[in-house]
Amino acid sequence: MNPIEFFDYAGIAVFAATGALAASRKQLDIVSFLFLGGVTAIGGGTLRDLILDAPVFWVEEHNYLIVAGAVAVIVYFTAHLIESRYKLLLWFDALGLAAYSVYGAWKGYELTGSPLVAIVMGTLTATFGGILRDLLAGEPSVLLRPEIYVSASLTGAVVYTLTAAFGVELFLCASLGFASSLALRGGALRFGWSIPPYRSRPGRNPEDIP
Amino acid sequence: MNPIEFFDYAGIAVFAATGALAASRKQLDIVSFLFLGGVTAIGGGTLRDLILDAPVFWVEEHNYLIVAGAVAVIVYFTAHLIESRYKLLLWFDALGLAAYSVYGAWKGYELTGSPLVAIVMGTLTATFGGILRDLLAGEPSVLLRPEIYVSASLTGAVVYTLTAAFGVELFLCASLGFASSLALRGGALRFGWSIPPYRSRPGRNPEDIP
Amino acid sequence: MNPIEFFDYAGIAVFAATGALAASRKQLDIVSFLFLGGVTAIGGGTLRDLILDAPVFWVEEHNYLIVAGAVAVIVYFTAHLIESRYKLLLWFDALGLAAYSVYGAWKGYELTGSPLVAIVMGTLTATFGGILRDLLAGEPSVLLRPEIYVSASLTGAVVYTLTAAFGVELFLCASLGFASSLALRGGALRFGWSIPPYRSRPGRNPEDIP
Repeated sequence: MNPIEFFDYAGIAVFAATGALAASRKQLDIVSFLFLGGVTAIGGGTLRDLILDAPVFWVEEHNYLIVAGAVAVIVYFTAHLIESRYKLLLWFDALGLAAYSVYGAWKGYELTGSPLVAIVMGTLTATFGGILRDLLAGEPSVLLRPEIYVSASLTGAVVYTLTAAFGVELFLCASLGFASSLALRGGALRFGWSIPPYRSRPGRNPEDIP
Repeated sequence: MNPIEFFDYAGIAVFAATGALAASRKQLDIVSFLFLGGVTAIGGGTLRDLILDAPVFWVEEHNYLIVAGAVAVIVYFTAHLIESRYKLLLWFDALGLAAYSVYGAWKGYELTGSPLVAIVMGTLTATFGGILRDLLAGEPSVLLRPEIYVSASLTGAVVYTLTAAFGVELFLCASLGFASSLALRGGALRFGWSIPPYRSRPGRNPEDIP
Repeated sequence: MNPIEFFDYAGIAVFAATGALAASRKQLDIVSFLFLGGVTAIGGGTLRDLILDAPVFWVEEHNYLIVAGAVAVIVYFTAHLIESRYKLLLWFDALGLAAYSVYGAWKGYELTGSPLVAIVMGTLTATFGGILRDLLAGEPSVLLRPEIYVSASLTGAVVYTLTAAFGVELFLCASLGFASSLALRGGALRFGWSIPPYRSRPGRNPEDIP
């Protein structure tokens, strides 16, 4: 196994868990756990492979589907043991975001040789699974939360791509990208870190903006 | 005409009707009937063909677009005669779900030879048209309703794929898959059948789950 | 530069502005401006290229990403100067809709030779960026507004495709398509033009429809 594939399987597993946790919050049945877990797990990578005109990864290699399905079943039988499922969902989402930002950037860079495309692919595909999950499960979109989200993914993709462009060893690049992304998003979840938001007129309610 | 194509055209027609019925519920204009009917009809199959790296079906063969458009126009002129349009939408959706679960599984199996991929393609593409319709029309998502939905699609895809893997004649496999899916979803609509949902603590409101 | 590419870059730029304006309305941070601006700008064209099995345009040519990013940054620093950002968003969206209806129809016609596919591609891809923006930013969907929207895109795609089919010079076809689409959508925004909507029973609230 290529060491970078570790990040791929890790991303699949934790995104599957977030989809299954969303299903548990909506009290859906076990097939819906499989469905939401599966779509969240494979959504971002499917978009990535379509855009890069690569064979879709889970059509080529069934293990991904089996991992995603197994995780969804495990969540089905254990989610009630967890105190705050939304908190856990957000932390798993942070892990998946970091893993996929790196893996998406790696695959984009491998297949196109362009750092800019690599960074865009990393960010786009890391965020897409969670976007799908929130849309399908009717959860509030993680994109619109005030704390750092897309920025953490972008940071991981940039760190991976720049170190890789300078010839640093693959697994080290990937680990640095993963760690920087997770540190930012983790800080956002733990301490509420955010980039100063756009604010045209201080104190106004966003909903009132014309 | 390959006999399996019957399920494809049937799926297109009834999904187009559900999109047009959603447009009628929102009192949109006739072009929006065409748009929502068209997107619902071709959405699932487009995703299927992209993932399988097959030519997108309606780019190759225009008849699909013409069928979808004609159905949308018919619904525009007849929907007011129907007592409950949402009920009809759900029943047409059940027909389309059954037809597309079988057709998606057939195409996935033909092109990849993998039963697992066939089952996933059947389920994914049968549900995707309705997901798009509900997202675009702002309808409550059919995925989140308590009665059986994804399970009915999965059942149809599994029945088709297993019988086909054992060498049963094509049209018979397809009919068995279609009938099993429609029976489950029909029972869900008529009698409220559901799989016992996930419930961590009985009696709690899903919205209160942390 | 092929003269038709003017419409492509114009569409990218104004759609990027609409995504960034949506981000400003939600008071997001600058990376979210880039993300929402970028997704809105490249969403429709990405879908178009995937369906047509063409290389995805921004993977081939990075300038598109740079234009979209630059526009998002400009909006970040200037949006507070604008009195009504939602109004501006709708007008930019109208420009992008017209430009992309023409460009999508051109590309669909070039690659398939079918007028019907060209018209569908123009309409589908011109509306898809805005649909994505509204879904991701949690804005009310522009599709469901009562004034003319999809119809304006359809008109532009039909005018382009018919004139092109009759051998009219490329830039003239494109300009006629663009002007007709913008005139319709502009009239809708300025004067509230709409096609008579579907109405089964006059005076009923759409939400009450069964």
